Amino acid sequence: MYATVLHGPGDVRYEQVEDPKILKPTDAIIQLSATCICGSDLWPYRGLSGTDGPAHMGHEYCGTVVEVGSEVRNIRPGQFVVGSFVLSDNTCPHCDFGFQSSCVQREFMSGVQAPYARVPLADGTLVATLEMPDANMIPHMLAVSDVLGTGWYGAVAANVREGGTVVVVGDGAVGLMGVMAASQLGAVRIIAMSRHESRQKLAREFGATDIVAERGEEGIARIMELTNGVGAESVVEAVGMEESMKQAIGACRPGGSIGYVGVPHGVSFDGQEMFFAQKRMLGGPAPVRRFLPDLMDRVLAGRIEPGKVFDLVLPIDQVAEGYKAMDERRAIKTMLKVA
Amino acid sequence: MYATVLHGPGDVRYEQVEDPKILKPTDAIIQLSATCICGSDLWPYRGLSGTDGPAHMGHEYCGTVVEVGSEVRNIRPGQFVVGSFVLSDNTCPHCDFGFQSSCVQREFMSGVQAPYARVPLADGTLVATLEMPDANMIPHMLAVSDVLGTGWYGAVAANVREGGTVVVVGDGAVGLMGVMAASQLGAVRIIAMSRHESRQKLAREFGATDIVAERGEEGIARIMELTNGVGAESVVEAVGMEESMKQAIGACRPGGSIGYVGVPHGVSFDGQEMFFAQKRMLGGPAPVRRFLPDLMDRVLAGRIEPGKVFDLVLPIDQVAEGYKAMDERRAIKTMLKVA
Repeated sequence: MYATVLHGPGDVRYEQVEDPKILKPTDAIIQLSATCICGSDLWPYRGLSGTDGPAHMGHEYCGTVVEVGSEVRNIRPGQFVVGSFVLSDNTCPHCDFGFQSSCVQREFMSGVQAPYARVPLADGTLVATLEMPDANMIPHMLAVSDVLGTGWYGAVAANVREGGTVVVVGDGAVGLMGVMAASQLGAVRIIAMSRHESRQKLAREFGATDIVAERGEEGIARIMELTNGVGAESVVEAVGMEESMKQAIGACRPGGSIGYVGVPHGVSFDGQEMFFAQKRMLGGPAPVRRFLPDLMDRVLAGRIEPGKVFDLVLPIDQVAEGYKAMDERRAIKTMLKVA
Repeated sequence: MYATVLHGPGDVRYEQVEDPKILKPTDAIIQLSATCICGSDLWPYRGLSGTDGPAHMGHEYCGTVVEVGSEVRNIRPGQFVVGSFVLSDNTCPHCDFGFQSSCVQREFMSGVQAPYARVPLADGTLVATLEMPDANMIPHMLAVSDVLGTGWYGAVAANVREGGTVVVVGDGAVGLMGVMAASQLGAVRIIAMSRHESRQKLAREFGATDIVAERGEEGIARIMELTNGVGAESVVEAVGMEESMKQAIGACRPGGSIGYVGVPHGVSFDGQEMFFAQKRMLGGPAPVRRFLPDLMDRVLAGRIEPGKVFDLVLPIDQVAEGYKAMDERRAIKTMLKVA
């Protein structure tokens, strides 16, 4: 088959590779319904995180099971499935505790920017629907796999509560999904920090009640104005840079919570500053598996349309243009049509 | 009157000072029933944190109100009171949120290693008992003011739950109180990290079910052995050094919580390491005021005896020996008798 391979910074190719096959009895092979490009794919694309040789790209996926290994019990060929970008057995103590992204057998998915893919730990990782969803559901189901699941985790890690006030730092796809999650979790005040008109519009559509375009100290001052000098009880940090992290800490009230889901790059914290800031912090790769059944139900019930975050849809053989558009911030997030 | 003044590293004197008096209409003057020396008093005593000129020492206190300012409403002369080491109005949004230690009017108490002291923000800070407690209750009531309140906050910040597993890093007075708090909050497995026999004994008395004497990587390995390779869901860090913080993070399971109540000295965190460790962290000066009524009730009902943490009791004019004994680790915590 053909698949997406990153050969070096800026060099993404859709080229012939070996077909995926069952390697372990706990594997499944799926035929992708659609896939997409993640903000985190841009780190190696930009040469900001190293790769050893050509890398098979892609970790967000949904599709139809075509084959399962001999030990797979919960999933069978013909089912439509969504899986997390983190593979987990869903039975170990960390999975039981709701942190499947720290599963003792954890692996990170890769190679799904392709028509077919191997999914290790299929029983633990994949969640099947009862019926084949309508085609118009595919973008929304695909979004659950990582971008919504990650935004959702950010909101949960930030202890978003019914009636609460939430600040979302970052207007990338994950930040926008954090807005949607905060809204679904019952927050009444959702302040999105965004400078881009198209993203502000989407943030409002997803539930943002206020937009703050300022950044840094000015941004924090604006949040304080909007919260009567108190700050927000919940802050979702969805960028991972030093400035955005400072903004998150500054926007949060003492005793409030920060869920940080942008992988930190070049960020460090001074212990004594953190101590006196007195803010609860939880980050990490999202345990999407914990949220999958609930989020898939919300999608199928028509309560959320997270697929709206895809503002560029391309046939998969134009994947290179998809990366380019996101790199140049012409697109928030690119969906790749496989069939 | 005479009071405790630190003139420089190692130079604590009990010497004549001006009597405290009402400076603001929200002040009260109390006559101390007893006071004590805090582990944090040792930082300036050891010259590890600077002071500008002579410093009036002491911030843990209980006693009898002798005078109140014209705006004090909740407290009256003759009442027995306990207050937090952090002064707060108990009415601002941060106080309402349970974080009185970040009160908008926050001040830190000082100068209570003396027979009398001024307590600013008396209405917000002090909690009175219905009756004058028996003399044997004084050490326990005194401990509530900071050392128990701080250990309690550490356990609450670490999300200690009924039936849970808790690791306490640090066998100083605060760590020992963290053990007591974890026990009161219903933890069934409480692992105290301690190398000192007398402190191990006290930890067991306060509810520790296991003792780990090893430190660093060995200490973490031992915790893993004791928790079937999982780690603890709650960790109280009560030291504030780099090694102890690493131990706390290493002992905590993914998705677990760390309450850190030792003021960090020379500690910093790498953002990406923290992210992938995936542990919830909350520190800060303890909002003891939130817990005061409950903790005072527990003491008066005889359910807890936190005053047992005082293993050296001296008349206040021997305060210099009290500091020396703690500095040399001959004493866990020194109580100073005032009358």
